Amino acid sequence: MAKLQKKKVVVIGGGTGTFVVLSALKNYPLELVAIVSMADDGGSTGMLRDQYGVLPPGDARRALVALSESSETLRELFNHRFQKGSLAGHSFGNIFLSALEQLKGNFGAAVEEASRVLNVKGRVLPVTLSNVRLFAKLADGKVLKGETNIDIPRTKVRAKIKKVWLEPRAKLNPEARKAIMLADLVVIGPGDLYTSLIPNLLVREMPEAIKKSKAKKVFVCNLMTKFGETQGFCAEDFTQEIEKYLGKNILDCAVFNNRKPGPKILARYKKEKAEFVSPQVIENGILANLLAPGPFIRHDHQKLAKALISLL
Amino acid sequence: MAKLQKKKVVVIGGGTGTFVVLSALKNYPLELVAIVSMADDGGSTGMLRDQYGVLPPGDARRALVALSESSETLRELFNHRFQKGSLAGHSFGNIFLSALEQLKGNFGAAVEEASRVLNVKGRVLPVTLSNVRLFAKLADGKVLKGETNIDIPRTKVRAKIKKVWLEPRAKLNPEARKAIMLADLVVIGPGDLYTSLIPNLLVREMPEAIKKSKAKKVFVCNLMTKFGETQGFCAEDFTQEIEKYLGKNILDCAVFNNRKPGPKILARYKKEKAEFVSPQVIENGILANLLAPGPFIRHDHQKLAKALISLL
Repeated sequence: MAKLQKKKVVVIGGGTGTFVVLSALKNYPLELVAIVSMADDGGSTGMLRDQYGVLPPGDARRALVALSESSETLRELFNHRFQKGSLAGHSFGNIFLSALEQLKGNFGAAVEEASRVLNVKGRVLPVTLSNVRLFAKLADGKVLKGETNIDIPRTKVRAKIKKVWLEPRAKLNPEARKAIMLADLVVIGPGDLYTSLIPNLLVREMPEAIKKSKAKKVFVCNLMTKFGETQGFCAEDFTQEIEKYLGKNILDCAVFNNRKPGPKILARYKKEKAEFVSPQVIENGILANLLAPGPFIRHDHQKLAKALISLL
Repeated sequence: MAKLQKKKVVVIGGGTGTFVVLSALKNYPLELVAIVSMADDGGSTGMLRDQYGVLPPGDARRALVALSESSETLRELFNHRFQKGSLAGHSFGNIFLSALEQLKGNFGAAVEEASRVLNVKGRVLPVTLSNVRLFAKLADGKVLKGETNIDIPRTKVRAKIKKVWLEPRAKLNPEARKAIMLADLVVIGPGDLYTSLIPNLLVREMPEAIKKSKAKKVFVCNLMTKFGETQGFCAEDFTQEIEKYLGKNILDCAVFNNRKPGPKILARYKKEKAEFVSPQVIENGILANLLAPGPFIRHDHQKLAKALISLL
């Protein structure tokens, strides 16, 4: 008897946004592939890169945990962060991936082995296996080196980010290319625009691969702006920046949230100078209440999954 | 149809000696339990104990790897040692067990979870879940604190070890007690006499449990002496020291090697001042060539397994 082919969904990003999309889609009968940014160089990931010359494990780790079907303990363990001592600041999963990379001599193989240990449903693919750093040029001409310096603004007010790029130029992971070509749906975002999403699009041949794929391409916009990266951005600004790096007329659709959180909840985000992203009406766009209930401003798993599944 | 009951073998020790026995017995249809010493406080284990207040993971890790049936990569990973950076000196498996202990709040539960990840055939049980340190009194009256200080003599020549004990007094892990009571065979050794084997016998109720068990009890003697611990020891000295802590007339049998390594190989061990242990003929003893071929003086897996299986 012929087996019904599962739809193939590729999620591109990194960080917690991608964790949310993967967690949302995990319970549907889909073939899921997460393609994750390899530009991170802060915190535990940064220490491991500096001290061991390994590739950044953080974004792959988060995606692995999102797709893991093993025990709660093992998933917790991978995100466990040492609070003190010589391991202070390290996340256990990062140490796991870096030790495996040292053993296997290859980050892709390390992620594969970790996928087996974590009983991962689907696949996690580093967008590139090149050892790269993210750079940004600001509107005032200043150049920032390193994802962590771009992610966390050092000054209170900083000029707008004008352009980001990778050095040296990165080569697309052939496995990631293959997954994109075979996909039915490619989801970009949500996530930090310049430090989690666009670093994927900066990889050589990536925009071309997405363009060539017959998949439907969708951008999931963030719920809130981020100070130092996207302050003052409306939904259109996000989409335009994605299109600047991906190319015009490649996205088939974008998904925006139209439910503004209550003033009490928004007030809590003032400390980080994060603001609500005003929704946008576009042709072929999805405008829906995507807000999770509760005290944090997050995408609701079920609502987001419903919106994305409707595109298949 | 009634299923044939597998014979139950409990191996008591720690360190590389226990690794050898477990590896030797692993391929036989036995129910294997490793009971491991919890007195280690050197190296990676010592750093983790000092910095995180966790129980010593090193001996449990070695036993887990010995009994693991998962991929070679995963087994290698557990023994992988970081060479530089902030993780320098740490073995990955130790970090794994300590992180799990922090999460679960219990070292026994951490070992159980690690057993699942490593697909362990059999069980690994810490001899105690009490947080203890090993002490030694030398013939000259000097007291040494800590397994690592006893293990590695600081001075070139040191007085003989007269007595070892644990502080505070340790309580036998009830699971270990149960395993001993149900065992058909209890194997003590080989291993460092005062720092790997006897620390198990120092745990309160341990000698009593072994005595009460209907299992056959066998001591596997070391092939070589160890400077600072057992210099000048013949096979009888080893057995007598074990009986000093275990009690008289409890051992049913002892296994001794009677094949002296060639002078070229022995010469290589002169650097560590390690000497061949002269064999001994005892009633109910097994005297056999247990030497593995090759440049190192080690127990041969097959020969050792054969000798032990003959006792079942």
